[in-house]
Amino acid sequence: MPGFPLPPPMRAALDAARLAADRGEVPVGAVIMRGNAIVATAANAPRERRDPTAHAEIVAIRAAARALGSDRLEGCDLWVTLEPCAMCAAAISHARIARLYYGASDEKGGAVEHGPRWFTQPTCHHRPELYSGIGAMAAGELLRRFFAARR
Amino acid sequence: MPGFPLPPPMRAALDAARLAADRGEVPVGAVIMRGNAIVATAANAPRERRDPTAHAEIVAIRAAARALGSDRLEGCDLWVTLEPCAMCAAAISHARIARLYYGASDEKGGAVEHGPRWFTQPTCHHRPELYSGIGAMAAGELLRRFFAARR
Repeated sequence: MPGFPLPPPMRAALDAARLAADRGEVPVGAVIMRGNAIVATAANAPRERRDPTAHAEIVAIRAAARALGSDRLEGCDLWVTLEPCAMCAAAISHARIARLYYGASDEKGGAVEHGPRWFTQPTCHHRPELYSGIGAMAAGELLRRFFAARR
Repeated sequence: MPGFPLPPPMRAALDAARLAADRGEVPVGAVIMRGNAIVATAANAPRERRDPTAHAEIVAIRAAARALGSDRLEGCDLWVTLEPCAMCAAAISHARIARLYYGASDEKGGAVEHGPRWFTQPTCHHRPELYSGIGAMAAGELLRRFFAARR
């Protein structure tokens, strides 16, 4: 695809998503940044980890919290290749993530612009700045190829 | 309080909630059962674990999945002292929990009968059987005492 390259955090998230696909996991990847530094990178891994909560965002949040020694990731940004689900969106609030950047929209499982639209709920106690569509084509293509190969 | 005793899983969840309070964590406890056997018991521990996702339900689900060697807890029941938040409610769907029993309602943070009411959302892909109010008085009293002592 011609044009400008993707921002480095989304490129790293897409690389993590590709690793997930190689391991037979739904290809989603996430990266947590503090300023220009990567704090954590994670691939979706519920099967490998035998953990239904091991979505890329949750694994990244847990790793970043461990790395920073705090259960609050204030000032950190989360980059993820796919629109977060309700579990991950609410975890993003609990973690006090400052900015959320996601790639492809997820009509079926997404909870930011679809379903409960978590960050618009009156009981949502922390809403990050939201940015979407960055890397959406690459992220969507990875997912389509993954599911096409399993049919 | 006169009357009948609480079911053993809710008594165990309340014991876990008391342990959380002793450690300075918001007193919530959870237990996962398969039939009459306890698979996992967990206390709310985001501060101690430095993990914003370490609500009692998530810690219990992760421990049960590890114990059973699967990311799906089909046929398992979750007992928790407080109405689950959006993160935990969606994790309960991901884990395919069969029955959810919770104690006190949580108007502010709950996502079962409050806020997004996750299990009524069209994008909710798995809805457990729901039972509430069991142990609500004891669970609510623990929370009230905890927050009163911190004011």
